[in-house]
Amino acid sequence: MKIELADSYGFCFGVKRAIRIAENTKDSATYGELIHNAEEIKRLKEHFNVKTLNTMQDLENENSIIIRTHGITKKDLDTFKSQNKKIIDATCPFVSKPQNIVEKMSKEGYDIVIFGDKNHPEVKGIMSYALKNVFVILSTDELIDKKISNKVAVVSQTTKKVEEFAKIVSYLITRSKEVRVFNTICNATLENQKAVEKLAKKADVMIIIGGKNSSNTKQLYLISKQICSDSYHIENESELKKKWFKGKNLCGISAGASTPDWIIKNVSNKIKELS
Amino acid sequence: MKIELADSYGFCFGVKRAIRIAENTKDSATYGELIHNAEEIKRLKEHFNVKTLNTMQDLENENSIIIRTHGITKKDLDTFKSQNKKIIDATCPFVSKPQNIVEKMSKEGYDIVIFGDKNHPEVKGIMSYALKNVFVILSTDELIDKKISNKVAVVSQTTKKVEEFAKIVSYLITRSKEVRVFNTICNATLENQKAVEKLAKKADVMIIIGGKNSSNTKQLYLISKQICSDSYHIENESELKKKWFKGKNLCGISAGASTPDWIIKNVSNKIKELS
Repeated sequence: MKIELADSYGFCFGVKRAIRIAENTKDSATYGELIHNAEEIKRLKEHFNVKTLNTMQDLENENSIIIRTHGITKKDLDTFKSQNKKIIDATCPFVSKPQNIVEKMSKEGYDIVIFGDKNHPEVKGIMSYALKNVFVILSTDELIDKKISNKVAVVSQTTKKVEEFAKIVSYLITRSKEVRVFNTICNATLENQKAVEKLAKKADVMIIIGGKNSSNTKQLYLISKQICSDSYHIENESELKKKWFKGKNLCGISAGASTPDWIIKNVSNKIKELS
Repeated sequence: MKIELADSYGFCFGVKRAIRIAENTKDSATYGELIHNAEEIKRLKEHFNVKTLNTMQDLENENSIIIRTHGITKKDLDTFKSQNKKIIDATCPFVSKPQNIVEKMSKEGYDIVIFGDKNHPEVKGIMSYALKNVFVILSTDELIDKKISNKVAVVSQTTKKVEEFAKIVSYLITRSKEVRVFNTICNATLENQKAVEKLAKKADVMIIIGGKNSSNTKQLYLISKQICSDSYHIENESELKKKWFKGKNLCGISAGASTPDWIIKNVSNKIKELS
């Protein structure tokens, strides 16, 4: 039986990249969690001695600092630079992009609007690149009593829904003469969904890996099940059953956004044994 | 029956300016109608010998050319310049603005989207300033099968509704990474629209005065008709019918941006006679 992985699955591009960087930077430390996955952070600590430290003080004695996927503030980055530390940037390129846009647009005199949660580390990083006049909002209500310039640049937290972003933009064009919109929403989740749909069309059996309480994994499973009735949602290889693969020609695999590659590999190896 | 005028109606800044220019430029000619109002154009011809000519050939023997409020194409303007004619520009500054924006953005490599009617003289003029890749649309359906660049600049015909413009923008941000939105909708239009909406809510019958080919008058009529079913679009008092006012308590009046005050007065007087 042939095994095929979906064109897009599991950890997104930025997370995969960050883990690869961390694995290649032994005996280092990250400022805050590299990614939002405790198992994976534990693995990086045990196998590569990549520590997770949460304050600037804790990091004082570290020589190599890995910047987490969500990025950090410009001020903290500048502090690390001034301390002559070795900085390894694992900021997701989709997060660096709004940081760079905000810095450039702010320099060009645009007011900045960020659609996002001001308490999220990603947004804290992005907003720190504005020189002045930055509004971080989740709804247009937060702008009603604010004075906004006639030139506004707008970006979004990478994980927001585009329909909500459009509402912010629609409001802004009634307030400002020029609204420069940068769609910085990352469509990794959407890509995983599209890929599972494509794979389920040609596979005889589909294995979707991820936490049973993971919303995006459940979405992937439902999409797969609608197309390929022999679809199964598992958390790890121990749940696999030999009978699922009997007489099948092609087994498709996908995984939720919080599923590390090593779990996927374990599942894939076990399927090979069983089929 | 009571008659009430909308809080804001009739001649806008650009039209008033154009008429003042025409009155000060006797024995000249306009290329196409100076404003969309036949009665006013007739007055300018009779009192100031300002002719309305419709082809480049007709204009060949004219020395002084007044550019109409809606503007003309860049090509036609360049032709007049090459013929060393005296050019008096009565293009509304709110129309010159999207022309300039389209030229600048096009030079900077942006694809251009114009929300407007491609047969309207204003839009023909604006689109002529794009170097390449210009899409003139009234709805997003017209863009579905089109290849659009990742950098798009959007302007609107000055007389469009901002809610419809927002729909175009909302669609574009799902297609392009950067959407540079210039809200070129004229405030005067918006003021007239808001005022007609307010008046239509309390009136039993609404009379909207303006050229049948006037885009902004048609918009006023549509807004009024949605609220007050007894709404009528007329060009002058000769079209009024006695039966429209029978049993009505309040007649609301509004007028498009190219409707002169003297026509509005004639209409108002005739309504008094009929009711």
